[in-house]
Amino acid sequence: MDLNTVKKRYEQELYEKVIPFWEEHCIDKEYGGYFTSLDRDGSVYDTEKYMWMQWRIVYMFAKFAVANGGKKEWIDIAKKGYDFLYAHGKSPDGTYYFALNRQGVPSVAPYNIFSDCFAAMGAAALFKATGEEKYRDEANSAMRSYVSRMDNPKGRWEKGMSGKAKRLSHGQFMMLANLAYEMRTCLGSNEFDSSAQDAVEAVVGRFWNPEMRILFENINPEGPAFDLNSCEGRMVNPGHGLESMWFMLQHAEQTGDKELIAKAADIIKGIFEFGTDREFGGIYYFMDALRKPHLELQWDMKLWWPHCEALIACIFAYRLTKEQWFLDKFEEIDKWTWDHFRDPEDPEWYAYLNRRGEPTHTLKGGKWKTFFHLPRCLFTVADQIAKI
Amino acid sequence: MDLNTVKKRYEQELYEKVIPFWEEHCIDKEYGGYFTSLDRDGSVYDTEKYMWMQWRIVYMFAKFAVANGGKKEWIDIAKKGYDFLYAHGKSPDGTYYFALNRQGVPSVAPYNIFSDCFAAMGAAALFKATGEEKYRDEANSAMRSYVSRMDNPKGRWEKGMSGKAKRLSHGQFMMLANLAYEMRTCLGSNEFDSSAQDAVEAVVGRFWNPEMRILFENINPEGPAFDLNSCEGRMVNPGHGLESMWFMLQHAEQTGDKELIAKAADIIKGIFEFGTDREFGGIYYFMDALRKPHLELQWDMKLWWPHCEALIACIFAYRLTKEQWFLDKFEEIDKWTWDHFRDPEDPEWYAYLNRRGEPTHTLKGGKWKTFFHLPRCLFTVADQIAKI
Repeated sequence: MDLNTVKKRYEQELYEKVIPFWEEHCIDKEYGGYFTSLDRDGSVYDTEKYMWMQWRIVYMFAKFAVANGGKKEWIDIAKKGYDFLYAHGKSPDGTYYFALNRQGVPSVAPYNIFSDCFAAMGAAALFKATGEEKYRDEANSAMRSYVSRMDNPKGRWEKGMSGKAKRLSHGQFMMLANLAYEMRTCLGSNEFDSSAQDAVEAVVGRFWNPEMRILFENINPEGPAFDLNSCEGRMVNPGHGLESMWFMLQHAEQTGDKELIAKAADIIKGIFEFGTDREFGGIYYFMDALRKPHLELQWDMKLWWPHCEALIACIFAYRLTKEQWFLDKFEEIDKWTWDHFRDPEDPEWYAYLNRRGEPTHTLKGGKWKTFFHLPRCLFTVADQIAKI
Repeated sequence: MDLNTVKKRYEQELYEKVIPFWEEHCIDKEYGGYFTSLDRDGSVYDTEKYMWMQWRIVYMFAKFAVANGGKKEWIDIAKKGYDFLYAHGKSPDGTYYFALNRQGVPSVAPYNIFSDCFAAMGAAALFKATGEEKYRDEANSAMRSYVSRMDNPKGRWEKGMSGKAKRLSHGQFMMLANLAYEMRTCLGSNEFDSSAQDAVEAVVGRFWNPEMRILFENINPEGPAFDLNSCEGRMVNPGHGLESMWFMLQHAEQTGDKELIAKAADIIKGIFEFGTDREFGGIYYFMDALRKPHLELQWDMKLWWPHCEALIACIFAYRLTKEQWFLDKFEEIDKWTWDHFRDPEDPEWYAYLNRRGEPTHTLKGGKWKTFFHLPRCLFTVADQIAKI
């Protein structure tokens, strides 16, 4: 596999197909903010403004604007989105709503801390791109909100009661590691470094089960970590695990932690061993650690984002370890992903395939897909190759 | 199609396969209540006690205990479940929790009014089977709780805010019609008759769009009923519609409303025209009224319950209208359903198939499947045939 050719292919897809699609279709010129529910051809099929999706667009355009190959005018797209979200998206206690309607009136309460997470990332990237203080202030405010809510993330919307087992959630820890990295690189802030170090140690030390070679999504905070008697305890999300592992590699590289590089590389192998569909190819969405029935109906579907994260994890691990295994795996996943998710006719990629790899939805963006995983993957893979 | 042979097949499946499976595997002898997360062979893969699933078991065993072909000893199964649910499942304000852990400690808050709905049905069926006053009291209490919560069903767990469009939900109305029928036939109560009449008129008069020939799940309470600009407004659930339509037929027969019979029969045809998968057979789970992308990843899966409800709707409509169309459709759905959902080796049926009709899960019961839709279908189809 000629990595230079791969790099060109990823860059071309990013700059000639994916970015132009979102530039053309996502901007709501009438009310501000973005449309993310975009059908195959870019037409809008719903106007709800989901906060995760909105802030991730701010983040990506701000990042790309100042990257090699980027255009300064993209800062303006990010800034206009920011203005809308800052003006309408913040609740009185400083947390971010989950969704707004098209006009910017809150439609879904701030029950989810990842709204704050992506607000922090978006604002931090805008500070990095512009140097304007207000973005740094907002990044710090959203980031502190995220950290302060980790123990009780749903607040008054929590439906769990005393009979519900207490769990630690892998997603919160992996995101903290990545958020701290963003705060360091965008704001030059070391405020979250020690929490990030703790989060990293928890992910590889507590969520990873070395005997089973499985990374769990939910563990017990006390006593034996792994609950194999409940669906929740057995929940595995291979794509989440792969995303988490490149966050670990990023952290390890920045902190010069060679042991962590080896550990994360080994976990990546474990995730692929368990999470690969050996019959139809690709990576499962959800799994049960004991292969018992999964709560989620769509567990065997193939989603774009786990494949995007898988590609980053492979190429990142290859660059840091130089092990051929990771390049071979990159080649395998690259082929399956481009063959199945890429729309050969219209720009941008499909989100949802059935287990066989056939698209089940024509959408290019929606409640859970925006200008984020795919462009980040295209950019990061090219960037990693450049560093090899 | 020889209906007597069909009747025998349904009764055999019910009394020789499905009921014995649940009798054998669902009873938690240690703590009370039921296990519903049962794998293919009946083994328990999770012990959470979801209230909808629990109360539906009470309802079905109480019903079958006093039906032709039933066994009196089933009352005891229902009573023991009732005792556990009554003792542990009720919150201080009289609403029912969404879930308990195995020991009976509340694990998920009472944010969902269908817990009250199924409690009312279970208690009412137990009153009918035993004549014991306490069950009537509980049925009335749960039923009044359901009705009183219809305007604000999630209460303090409501995440929707002012920017969210107000909707009327088809599910609440169709269930009210069925609940009132159960209260009439089990308790001899006419307390809910006029609300049921209003609900029936709303379902066929407001949720049904006669121009598009589509039954909508969510409509606007004021102004134009149908919102074709949002995913929520365009949401269609064919199985729900078919279940609703046999509730309408039940209501129409009891009230002698011939116009309603004709209307419901026509709507059933519309639902099949729109909801049938013409490539692989069976009925889609969710659809978009304009065939735009659906919010739900699993929209094209085939679930057991829409097919069970389709069978009842067809045979019920055939009995009341004698139109050959409904018998032909029954034959088509009967074949597809038995060919694909029935497990040829172990008793009880699969819940979840992919679009092609291949099982994606081995489970026979879970968070959303219990001793309810399948046994109710087997019983009701046989019962309808007996009345032809």
